[in-house]
Amino acid sequence: MNNAILLLHCPDKPGLISELTNFITVNNGNIIYLDQYVDHTEEQFFMRMEWELDKFLIPREKISEYFNTLYAAKHQMQFTIFFREQKPRMALFVSKMSHCFYDIMARYTAGEWDVEIPLIISNHEDLRPAAERFGIPYHVFPLTKDNKHELEPQEMELLKQNNIDFIVLARYMQIISEDMINAYPQRIINIHHSFLPAFIGAKPYHQAYTRGVKLIGATSHYVTTELDAGPIIEQDVVRISHKDTIQDLINKGKDLEKIVLSHAVQKHLEHKILAFKNKTVIFN
Amino acid sequence: MNNAILLLHCPDKPGLISELTNFITVNNGNIIYLDQYVDHTEEQFFMRMEWELDKFLIPREKISEYFNTLYAAKHQMQFTIFFREQKPRMALFVSKMSHCFYDIMARYTAGEWDVEIPLIISNHEDLRPAAERFGIPYHVFPLTKDNKHELEPQEMELLKQNNIDFIVLARYMQIISEDMINAYPQRIINIHHSFLPAFIGAKPYHQAYTRGVKLIGATSHYVTTELDAGPIIEQDVVRISHKDTIQDLINKGKDLEKIVLSHAVQKHLEHKILAFKNKTVIFN
Amino acid sequence: MNNAILLLHCPDKPGLISELTNFITVNNGNIIYLDQYVDHTEEQFFMRMEWELDKFLIPREKISEYFNTLYAAKHQMQFTIFFREQKPRMALFVSKMSHCFYDIMARYTAGEWDVEIPLIISNHEDLRPAAERFGIPYHVFPLTKDNKHELEPQEMELLKQNNIDFIVLARYMQIISEDMINAYPQRIINIHHSFLPAFIGAKPYHQAYTRGVKLIGATSHYVTTELDAGPIIEQDVVRISHKDTIQDLINKGKDLEKIVLSHAVQKHLEHKILAFKNKTVIFN
Amino acid sequence: MNNAILLLHCPDKPGLISELTNFITVNNGNIIYLDQYVDHTEEQFFMRMEWELDKFLIPREKISEYFNTLYAAKHQMQFTIFFREQKPRMALFVSKMSHCFYDIMARYTAGEWDVEIPLIISNHEDLRPAAERFGIPYHVFPLTKDNKHELEPQEMELLKQNNIDFIVLARYMQIISEDMINAYPQRIINIHHSFLPAFIGAKPYHQAYTRGVKLIGATSHYVTTELDAGPIIEQDVVRISHKDTIQDLINKGKDLEKIVLSHAVQKHLEHKILAFKNKTVIFN
Repeated sequence: MNNAILLLHCPDKPGLISELTNFITVNNGNIIYLDQYVDHTEEQFFMRMEWELDKFLIPREKISEYFNTLYAAKHQMQFTIFFREQKPRMALFVSKMSHCFYDIMARYTAGEWDVEIPLIISNHEDLRPAAERFGIPYHVFPLTKDNKHELEPQEMELLKQNNIDFIVLARYMQIISEDMINAYPQRIINIHHSFLPAFIGAKPYHQAYTRGVKLIGATSHYVTTELDAGPIIEQDVVRISHKDTIQDLINKGKDLEKIVLSHAVQKHLEHKILAFKNKTVIFN
Repeated sequence: MNNAILLLHCPDKPGLISELTNFITVNNGNIIYLDQYVDHTEEQFFMRMEWELDKFLIPREKISEYFNTLYAAKHQMQFTIFFREQKPRMALFVSKMSHCFYDIMARYTAGEWDVEIPLIISNHEDLRPAAERFGIPYHVFPLTKDNKHELEPQEMELLKQNNIDFIVLARYMQIISEDMINAYPQRIINIHHSFLPAFIGAKPYHQAYTRGVKLIGATSHYVTTELDAGPIIEQDVVRISHKDTIQDLINKGKDLEKIVLSHAVQKHLEHKILAFKNKTVIFN
Repeated sequence: MNNAILLLHCPDKPGLISELTNFITVNNGNIIYLDQYVDHTEEQFFMRMEWELDKFLIPREKISEYFNTLYAAKHQMQFTIFFREQKPRMALFVSKMSHCFYDIMARYTAGEWDVEIPLIISNHEDLRPAAERFGIPYHVFPLTKDNKHELEPQEMELLKQNNIDFIVLARYMQIISEDMINAYPQRIINIHHSFLPAFIGAKPYHQAYTRGVKLIGATSHYVTTELDAGPIIEQDVVRISHKDTIQDLINKGKDLEKIVLSHAVQKHLEHKILAFKNKTVIFN
Repeated sequence: MNNAILLLHCPDKPGLISELTNFITVNNGNIIYLDQYVDHTEEQFFMRMEWELDKFLIPREKISEYFNTLYAAKHQMQFTIFFREQKPRMALFVSKMSHCFYDIMARYTAGEWDVEIPLIISNHEDLRPAAERFGIPYHVFPLTKDNKHELEPQEMELLKQNNIDFIVLARYMQIISEDMINAYPQRIINIHHSFLPAFIGAKPYHQAYTRGVKLIGATSHYVTTELDAGPIIEQDVVRISHKDTIQDLINKGKDLEKIVLSHAVQKHLEHKILAFKNKTVIFN
């Protein structure tokens, strides 16, 4: 798995694919994945390319520099290069509900995901025994409106010490402050228990019940400073009927939330998401 | 098909089902369908019952009176009795788009639905040739904001002359006036091309495109005086991706709209919908 | 939650609902759930009724006898009476894969299900650490074709000692013997990783890949002596594409399998399933 | 819309994309669509590329020859080149049921599809009035087992006179002979009313009802000489319950069949399908 992954976007122009694939091929890289997409409205080119580094002529630590010099600067590219060997480090934020937590733990423990989860952060003690079952350090920050300014910097310090790459809010019921959002741009993944943009904010299942919808949804998105308005990664719905009480909606929604969140995290781990102007390009 | 259908709701109390099924059974009716539902939050009982009239002791034209005297008044029931032999009469309202129109015509022509469609009303000439293919009178009322007060009474007169029971707005792009809505309470069915309550109002596919959702939806509902806020009958969604342009959303949405609208109309024709407090109970 | 649940089916005849609801009402039971269904092809009546026992005149331990004498014998009813206070006892069978196991454990630990899981049985040691995390005794019976006749009676003895009501095969990769199936009729729930009856038997994802289907499925069913042919409880599918490898199908299928199995187990726990002639009636 | 579309597959090797996109770019073609896929199991490369011909240096009638000489022969490519300006010509085969017929006609009449439908062929008179509504010549060949060898050559002659490119079997209930299949390889599209490979052959809804499945499906595929076994283009399912009779399955299935078939036809019209070893690659 000595592979590199290049994610980029830039203004579209003819010949980009040819030029970029050529860069890999002439330097003895073997392309094993290529997907690209042109947004003709925005005139923007998006690409994800993965290649084997074994015989690649450019040393790994120089790839980014070379690519920047030879292509990115010339074409106004925004790009990131990832290496398969570097496991992303994820912080899991939870509150009291356990369904998303267990779904993530099950995948992590079974080795389904290429990720490290060095710590879990919560505002409640409730899931400590569950976290300890999986041997993951559990830190409680009892955040309130009043102490947020004091406690959040401690949280951020802890994240920094653990070299956290991205954060997953697994039904973490607190609003994240602007400082933390800005420190992890497009690297905080939330699950909202509605089909956004319907039912923004608190108690979406109650809102759905009152409106009498026939499907309920869940939405995973990157967190931005505007509540429930960040770039959407994944959504799904499940059918309900007039027979379902609010409690039924909450129960049916749990399965939706955990699957939608886990699929979004997986896409993020595979470096298959590019966010552009509050929308996402999701490569297959 | 000499059957009666009873649709009712009333405050819940013990013994209602027993009492109501007994009414049919002791009078020699054979119940062929019974579904009931108790909303424990609203403490409201809902029921749909269908029975054969062949040996029923109460004459058809007296059933409503007897039922009212013996049960409805006592239990504060809201009820309606329908007879299978009476085909509902439907007015179809269209504008320029034909997909919902053809889906309804195909079912009507194939005899799938127990309905009469004596006329089609439009604000444009566009679908006249299509309507004439199916031999249905096509009336154009070129409604604008300015002439609405003048033309709508003529429309309503035409509906009355044709003994119209209910109206289907098959992507009819005009807002119905309060007078007409009040004349057909819970008898005007609309299709809105979004997953309501997301993207209320104009150009929902453009709104969906801008927000970057991963699913688009369609919603069929009874029209009330508040725009796109009436009781929802049916909803469905289809998956989209970043690759879909607004035109792709419009095209994919058409299949959704026509199926969702036709399913809602079918439920209405089968007398399987009860509206209560801006929500619907849909019997199977 | 001092409720009784009656599940029954019998040849259809007029007046059954009235008679049965009357039985509860006149004896001061408060019906809180009633659903019934008539299969007009089989001329069979199915019903599920739940009522509060607090003021019910017939003592709990006599209900079954009274009901049998007064109604069941007369109408050739097959019936079962359950009490909410008696938690069903479930044995979980696993092999090496953990996704269904964790999904069930998460629900059990979170208290979502009204069930006791006194033991886990496996033919492999692999999931012992996972089981121990949840504090549930884990028994290994290393079954092979050769020793099955020797080991299975020991398994059945263990199940008996633990008063097991029903068995869930959570991707347990062994074929259950006729003796055990007959000891737990319609009380062994399996998950098969295909949309049955497509791809019966071994390696269904490989079969699906070879056939080039565009959706893969999962099916939960009661185990009968014919392989993968028992009454189906729940099925679902997920979209795949030509881009998915066999490993992708296996991964995507896991989410499907765990949700489909858990939903089937939940319906069983709620006593909402009636099996009749190799098909199931599933009450809402 | 003066565009060319290239569909190809060949053994995979490094540098193909670079070489192929370069071919367009250096000859002043503007690529507006590119999608490619590598099947690592089969070591096969698949590509679809569309480009504008306005300034393309190679004359349209020479493109195929040049491409063959310069690339295809060298890389053992199977390829086809289509031109947007050439509308495909489609023959529609129907029997008695009209739902797929109307769905196709509605799209055709509304101009949604870039296609010509010069004739409709049937083994029954039933849909003649419906066909005449849309002004399309309707030819009846009352095929039976006995006269098939006599009538099918006449059908094929008629298809030839009309320069038919591909055939759509819209619930045409006859088995196509090997001669006709071989004359239109991967150019006869069928809709089978089941989730293949479940319920191959006659009366799939009856089979589904008997098996007690919880979802029914529809499958569109290219016709090969083995019954219901050709490469699958599109599939979908809809949820059913024990309450659905066989007639309900037939009715619910109709919506599924028409949408699945129309989506398959649309993909074919857009030249987005490549068939390889009895499976399809479907480009987005």
